[in-house]
Formats: sequence, C-alpha cells, structure tokens
Amino acid sequence: MSDSQPQFDTIAIVGVGLIGGSIALAARQRCVCRHVIGIGRNSERLEQAKNQQLIDSFDTDIRSLENVDLVVVCTPVDRIVKDVTEVLQATPETTLVTDAGSVKASICCELAKISGATSRFIGSHPLAGSHQSGFENADADLYVGRKCVVTPILKTPQALQDSIISFWQSLEMDVRSMTPEDHDRVLAFTSHLPHLAAAAIAELVQETALDFAATGFRDTTRIAAGDPELWTAIFSENTEQLVTATDELMATLQRYRDALADGDLNEVRKRLQSAQRHRLLYEKRQGIE
Amino acid sequence: MSDSQPQFDTIAIVGVGLIGGSIALAARQRCVCRHVIGIGRNSERLEQAKNQQLIDSFDTDIRSLENVDLVVVCTPVDRIVKDVTEVLQATPETTLVTDAGSVKASICCELAKISGATSRFIGSHPLAGSHQSGFENADADLYVGRKCVVTPILKTPQALQDSIISFWQSLEMDVRSMTPEDHDRVLAFTSHLPHLAAAAIAELVQETALDFAATGFRDTTRIAAGDPELWTAIFSENTEQLVTATDELMATLQRYRDALADGDLNEVRKRLQSAQRHRLLYEKRQGIE
Repeated sequence: MSDSQPQFDTIAIVGVGLIGGSIALAARQRCVCRHVIGIGRNSERLEQAKNQQLIDSFDTDIRSLENVDLVVVCTPVDRIVKDVTEVLQATPETTLVTDAGSVKASICCELAKISGATSRFIGSHPLAGSHQSGFENADADLYVGRKCVVTPILKTPQALQDSIISFWQSLEMDVRSMTPEDHDRVLAFTSHLPHLAAAAIAELVQETALDFAATGFRDTTRIAAGDPELWTAIFSENTEQLVTATDELMATLQRYRDALADGDLNEVRKRLQSAQRHRLLYEKRQGIE
Repeated sequence: MSDSQPQFDTIAIVGVGLIGGSIALAARQRCVCRHVIGIGRNSERLEQAKNQQLIDSFDTDIRSLENVDLVVVCTPVDRIVKDVTEVLQATPETTLVTDAGSVKASICCELAKISGATSRFIGSHPLAGSHQSGFENADADLYVGRKCVVTPILKTPQALQDSIISFWQSLEMDVRSMTPEDHDRVLAFTSHLPHLAAAAIAELVQETALDFAATGFRDTTRIAAGDPELWTAIFSENTEQLVTATDELMATLQRYRDALADGDLNEVRKRLQSAQRHRLLYEKRQGIE
C-alpha cells in the first residue's frame, strides 16, 4: 500500500487477456487505483484471474459498470467500437474511457459520431506485446519503458488527454500524442507491413525447404506465427494505410529485382547500405546491442 | 590429444574470419586433424589468430600450400572461384578442396570448367552464422547440430563426396547432399529473399517512425544490419533464383493488396493461416518453443 493518493479509485478492464491482464497487474502493483474490475465473456476465466489477484471483482456484462473512474477497453480491434459504445452508455459523464487497440483512425472516427463520446473517450495504443496470450502470461512490467501513443482528435478536451497520458505514464510508459491518422500511417510501416511481409515469406517457403532455413528466416518470419484472426482484424481496420505501404514495398522490391536482372550491383549495394543505416539507427535508438 | 587417428593430417583454412575461424577451432577441438594452416591477406591478423590458438601456422600466399590434405575456402562468395582455382594449382592431386559459400551453382559451374577440378573440389555450405564477424568471435560449437549442404555434380567421385560429408559430420553437423542448382533454389527462399525483404522494409521506414517500431519490426528487419558488401556479392551470385523468388513475393503481396482493397477478409485470413501453418511447422522441425 502506498501512502500517496491513487490516481483513480476504480478502474475497469474490458477484455482480461495478456494485454488487459498486464495493465490490471501493472496498475495494481503501482497503486494507480484502489480497485480493478475485470469485464469479460467467460465468468470461469474471470474467476481464475481474480484468484491470481489480477482483478478485485468481475462481471460478464459491460452494462454492470456504473461508478468507475476509468475504463480501458482491451478487446480485439474489431470489437472495440462496440465495446466502447456500451461502456459509454453504461457509465456516467465522469467516467473516462480509452482502449489499447493497435489501429486508431477507424475506431476514433466511428466513436466521434456518438454524441458526447469525444468528451470522455480518447484512443490509446500501448506498444508492447508478446507472442504469448492469455492473462496467465500477464506481466506487471510488460509496459515499462515502452512507447504508448494517445490519439486526440480536434475536439478532445485537454484535461481528458492529460489524465490518460498520466495513466500510461504511471505504468512507466513513454507516452506520445499524435492524430489517429498519423498513428495508423506510422504503424502501417512499423508493424502491419512487417507482419504482412513475414506472412508472405513464410507462405512461399516449400515444406521441404524448411530444414534449410537458418537464423535469418527464423527472425524474419517469427511474427507469421501470430493469430490469423487477430491480424485479419488489424489489417481490415487499417486497410487504406496498409495498401499504400504494401504498394511501396512492392515498388522497392521491383527496384531490387530490376537492378539484379540488369546486373546493376551498385544500385543493389546502395539500397542495402540505406537499409543497414536505418536498421543501425533503430538499434541505437532502442538500445539494442 | 585423442587416441583415435585424426581424419586428416593437415587442413588449410583460406580466409580466417568468423566462419573460417570457427571451422578451424571446431576441427582442432575435435581432433579432426593434427595441424591447421591459416591463409589470409593480413599477416598481423593471422599472427593474432595463431596466438589465440585457432591455427598452428599461417601464410599470406595460397601458393605456399603444398602438402595439405584438405583445404576449406571460407572467403566471400565473389572470391571463392579465384581462391579455389589458386588452391587447385598450388596443391597436388591428393589434396581435397571445398568451400563454405552460401551460393553454389555459379561457383560449382565455373570450377567444373577447370581441368581436373571435379575430381577434388566439391561445394559445401554450412548453414550457420552470426551477426558478428572476425575470428575473435569464432565459436567451436557454431556448427553443432546445424545443417550443412554438400553439392556434388554428376562427375563428382563418390569417395570425394564421402570424405567431405565425413569432415562436416566430424564437426557435428547434419549433412545433406543436393545439386548446386537445388541448393540455390532452396536458399533463395529460405535466406536470400528474407534478407532482401528485411532490407526493403527497413529502407521504407521513415526515421521519425523508428521510435514506434516494436518487437515485430525488431525481428523482421534484424538481418538488414548485415554487411551490404557481403550480401551484394551473395545476391549477385544467385541472381536468377533470387529474381524468381522476388517475383513470387511480389505476386503474393499483390494478392494481399487486392484482397485488402476489395475487403475480401476471407482471402486475407486464409493466407495468414497458411503462413502460420508453415511457420509453426518450421518451429516444430527446428525445436523452437
């Protein structure tokens, strides 16, 4: 127990999986609130999460939420709009609402159409995850030092934005603000396109060739093991930006292809040097050895 | 010192970097030979490698090689033909020669044109490496349990093939034989295409977006940090197969792109499922958790 006043009295987590469970655990351990409510579809699973002390209480009905200060919706991206809408209907004007979805523009745009939503909903994307899933793998330190993007729109009140930034900071995240559209454009290149390319490469390799794949293949295609349902939903919510990014990738591959076919090794070398520069800059920024 | 008879009296390693140094160290530690000669361009570096007990003696001139039982050429792929040719000229008919290059068809085809080469040269590709370089990072266990491909051609004598297979097995490698062309076709998909795609993705990401790259980007683009010179050489020696593989990747990306643009989520899901199946099969085969 901390002596300082917690930021919120009660927080509700909608969707208690790896992401939601880790937020619950992180918030509890850092005394960000006094009480964590878990909302999910399966009461047996929620009971287990309570027994593991991730949450203090639970319910299977979003409409049961009443006096809660903050709701974090951690369901798959294609369910966020529906779940946030129900949360907004169930809770009073004073309840703040955010989400943890990895796409933002479609969600924020849909929700902005709901009367009164803008004054208490703001989108969030904590950039951390794991190849594991389920609250059993929840980690109180999953978010420490990682980036979180909050995505205000023009009408977002400053006080709401400040509160949500402060919440993620209290989980020791490095928070940045950008528009939902900018977020989706950036993430199309840093997350969604790498996933699509990894999947395409994994799909192309013949079964008999798999024995001759070394560390390069291992790392490049790791994320292709990700849940197809989850990623279909992510892709479908960021179609426009992902199509643009895929076009750019195909154009770059075509340049490599033409240079190889023409024997233009200077062009190949120049591109590989540019790629190496970007990668090394990334490693330096992220403190990768 | 082992009591058993070593397989070779003297082995020469041409090019004492990470690969050559690790082969030297592995062979010495497993008593595969009595003496290891290092051949390189820089006598100061070779002296250091000798002081680190990777090699027993050294020379900067391939032509100094005379009474040696096996020569393993570990220079970059665009220097292998030249170096093997010099080795064949310098050594007697009884000296066996192989290499460690990651492309095979162009090298084996060029060398087959040299009179007498086929009776004592056979290509090899030990599938192991590191993001590190230099003999300082040599590892006696780099090859343990890893695949090695030897690439006989029609005229390769069975005894030569057996000796080289036995050599790699004595370093505890899992050895397979295939034609140089089959090797290059397989490696285009399992190694060269992943490298090209990783480089293309790394190149496309804007500098300002790098802060918002998470674990997917980290792993997918890791190999883009590789040496541009080395990879330009590899690509240039396997142009035909790599162009074919790049065409297939672009066609697959186009299918994703069209499905996304058309809102055909079933197609997207089906492809992601196929990719996941391939990746999980790979993980199972390689014993990745």
